[in-house]
Amino acid sequence: MHAKQMISSHPHVRGSTNDALIRCIEECYDCAQACTTCADACLGEDSVAELVQCIRMNMDCADVCAATGSVATRRSGSNEIVIRSMLEACATACRLCAEECERHAQMHAHCRICAEECRTCEDSCRQAMQSMRH
Amino acid sequence: MHAKQMISSHPHVRGSTNDALIRCIEECYDCAQACTTCADACLGEDSVAELVQCIRMNMDCADVCAATGSVATRRSGSNEIVIRSMLEACATACRLCAEECERHAQMHAHCRICAEECRTCEDSCRQAMQSMRH
Amino acid sequence: MHAKQMISSHPHVRGSTNDALIRCIEECYDCAQACTTCADACLGEDSVAELVQCIRMNMDCADVCAATGSVATRRSGSNEIVIRSMLEACATACRLCAEECERHAQMHAHCRICAEECRTCEDSCRQAMQSMRH
Amino acid sequence: MHAKQMISSHPHVRGSTNDALIRCIEECYDCAQACTTCADACLGEDSVAELVQCIRMNMDCADVCAATGSVATRRSGSNEIVIRSMLEACATACRLCAEECERHAQMHAHCRICAEECRTCEDSCRQAMQSMRH
Repeated sequence: MHAKQMISSHPHVRGSTNDALIRCIEECYDCAQACTTCADACLGEDSVAELVQCIRMNMDCADVCAATGSVATRRSGSNEIVIRSMLEACATACRLCAEECERHAQMHAHCRICAEECRTCEDSCRQAMQSMRH
Repeated sequence: MHAKQMISSHPHVRGSTNDALIRCIEECYDCAQACTTCADACLGEDSVAELVQCIRMNMDCADVCAATGSVATRRSGSNEIVIRSMLEACATACRLCAEECERHAQMHAHCRICAEECRTCEDSCRQAMQSMRH
Repeated sequence: MHAKQMISSHPHVRGSTNDALIRCIEECYDCAQACTTCADACLGEDSVAELVQCIRMNMDCADVCAATGSVATRRSGSNEIVIRSMLEACATACRLCAEECERHAQMHAHCRICAEECRTCEDSCRQAMQSMRH
Repeated sequence: MHAKQMISSHPHVRGSTNDALIRCIEECYDCAQACTTCADACLGEDSVAELVQCIRMNMDCADVCAATGSVATRRSGSNEIVIRSMLEACATACRLCAEECERHAQMHAHCRICAEECRTCEDSCRQAMQSMRH
């Protein structure tokens, strides 16, 4: 992903990037993709009936991550309040999705990898929030 | 929009719908469309340079409303925490977008109508949060 | 939905709206919401294992309708080629989702209503394409 | 991005991945992010009035890429027709966005990088279509 290269060329940024926020943007897009795959992979399992809640959490998490990635990309100094509230919502969605995926991690590799991705994204949202405090 | 008719047929709902949440879902989709139009209309004005912040808020608000509409539609009893945090983020995005649009409401009808739509959506998010407390 | 009111206030439109396109925009947002509900309702059915393909088609159709709604809203005279290709993709996704939903329409009201909504949206996409030929 | 790792764990895939499609999925998410940045960066330029069409194309391209990335991720053997029509629409949106960005590439680094990203994504869509013919 070329997020850093792109954002560095923004006229309001001019090289001085917030690296925690950029890492978070990349994780949001990555996590949206991982959750979309995990939902579809769960739908392909024979035990789909036991994975219903996991599929729902995956879809919620994908939607929240995608919107957070866009909003955080569109950072313009003046929308910090919206970014913050989306980072908060995204950390929450990622945490809950990770908890659900972890329940199936021993049975399904896609749930294990997705849980790891959600934890990484949750962590990067919290670090981005921290970085915006200064 | 057929949100109520569709949601009434959900096996976990069986007719007993949360009308405040359904109204909120409809407003989220409506507000996403209004904000997308307002951004494009602002881009078409001769005074586009003065509307830059409005365009950004419109795009943020459209993204947050669209994600909130999906997450709230996918209500399954067990994702209330994610819905709540998105309703919170959505009320914030709508409030800030309305405040920005109101600054241009006398000059541009699209900003005036969009501000009204954002206020309605903000209000419906707050009422949906209230309705989920019980 | 206030699509017509909003689009009428666009500086490039000034009252002379393409009503077929506006109806299509409204149907796209409506159909995205209907498909998102149908996917979640299917996940709530005891027979979820038989509805896997329906859930996938619902999610594809919701994604395509949402993107088509945004792109068609952002109409600016000069993006007709992108609108057309999305209207084409959207009509296809709606047709296939309707065909799948119709298989379960007798068992599940949400599939029946969603199929109707998809047919309406497919039809409105075709009429919008027709309207842009002139 | 962990697209390959995730998709390899899908029960219908079991290791035998379509690498052209996976590369395309990654490019779609990457291009959506690049276009969202370029739109926001254009809005930050003093010459915003000359970049209006570029901003619109960026937003269209971001929407189409995001939807294509999701639909192509949700590949399930049976939605090839929807994937194909979205790959077609996405190649079109990327080509037109690249052409517009190239007009400003000498002035603005974000337009230059975004144009390259759009060309890469367009190319990966065409290769993914090719790979699905067999």
